Amino acid sequence: MSPKVSQEHKEQRRKQLLQAAEEVFIEHGYENTTMKHVMDKAGVSRGGLYQYFDNKEDLFEALIGEQQREIIDESLQAMIEEQGSCWDALLMTFLGEEKTASDTMDPLAPSKLEYFITGRNEKRRREHAKERYFHGFRVTAKIIEKGVEAGEFQPRFDPEVIARFIISYVDGLAVDHAILDSESIKLKEQTQLLIEYLKWGLNVKE
Amino acid sequence: MSPKVSQEHKEQRRKQLLQAAEEVFIEHGYENTTMKHVMDKAGVSRGGLYQYFDNKEDLFEALIGEQQREIIDESLQAMIEEQGSCWDALLMTFLGEEKTASDTMDPLAPSKLEYFITGRNEKRRREHAKERYFHGFRVTAKIIEKGVEAGEFQPRFDPEVIARFIISYVDGLAVDHAILDSESIKLKEQTQLLIEYLKWGLNVKE
Repeated sequence: MSPKVSQEHKEQRRKQLLQAAEEVFIEHGYENTTMKHVMDKAGVSRGGLYQYFDNKEDLFEALIGEQQREIIDESLQAMIEEQGSCWDALLMTFLGEEKTASDTMDPLAPSKLEYFITGRNEKRRREHAKERYFHGFRVTAKIIEKGVEAGEFQPRFDPEVIARFIISYVDGLAVDHAILDSESIKLKEQTQLLIEYLKWGLNVKE
Repeated sequence: MSPKVSQEHKEQRRKQLLQAAEEVFIEHGYENTTMKHVMDKAGVSRGGLYQYFDNKEDLFEALIGEQQREIIDESLQAMIEEQGSCWDALLMTFLGEEKTASDTMDPLAPSKLEYFITGRNEKRRREHAKERYFHGFRVTAKIIEKGVEAGEFQPRFDPEVIARFIISYVDGLAVDHAILDSESIKLKEQTQLLIEYLKWGLNVKE
């Protein structure tokens, strides 16, 4: 077997393990998931899993790292052009490709919240949480900045505070959704209200 | 000893235990706190603690139940009159007595988040979480309703969605604050922006 095939095989196996882990985390949450759950779901031995990941923390970080990489890889300017406007690019950051308010939520959100909140006093998780927050903040703030330059937005408030507002509000919806459900919290209507507030706060030219 | 004194003594001891528990939860968070921590902080034996609370869950629920009771006990109409307007009463629900945006946060917030998020699949915690959410929602929605009746507010959006918006946003600030810190998330500025959004969304007559 050539080294290339072996490398491809390893990559593929790693992806399968991450996929199994994702399903297990969604089902049990972060704290209640064990490496055994992942082995069973992926149908691999203990050695087969530990060859790729040292522990549950490693596995979870790899999983949410992959999700974030997909966003970073897409350069911001290209994304704005593809979306047609900074407003659409901004909506995409928290609504996804459809850019419409809905009653669905990232199914990994509850595990992410557990991971970062329970682990807030551990250096590694805290650093990672900080990195994720500031990544989200920079992307959002940059899109708003470009919208101001392009004359699309004439913000009534500090654009950096508006960017933070979006992130905190979406985090809050994730918490309430993890604990309750879409219908109790009126997820769709709450998201629509955020859009209205942003339109006004950014003073979006239509 | 008369039964009355004994009852008073028990009440006092229970309060002391809750106070010790509060300090311990603030220090360690919910998941990492043990009953042993509480015994050590309160300076009581195992029996002295278990006589009042069956387990950590009981203790935590009693603690946050006390906090909530203080709000319920104050009747809503009396509170509005005391505050001088529905707008001030509304601000009080999320800013406290000072009614000004600040960089401080309820120090028990991270433990509450852990408790409800990690325990979201346990019936008891889920019910309790739901109860707390709807209690907060009803108080907020009722104040807005009274403000509309009094001609103080002429909301641009569904008042019940605005009430939910406040709760979710404050939950989001609590999450971000638990993971990061006031300066990173600009807690004060973010809170001020919420106030501006509410003024506009509720169309507050000044």
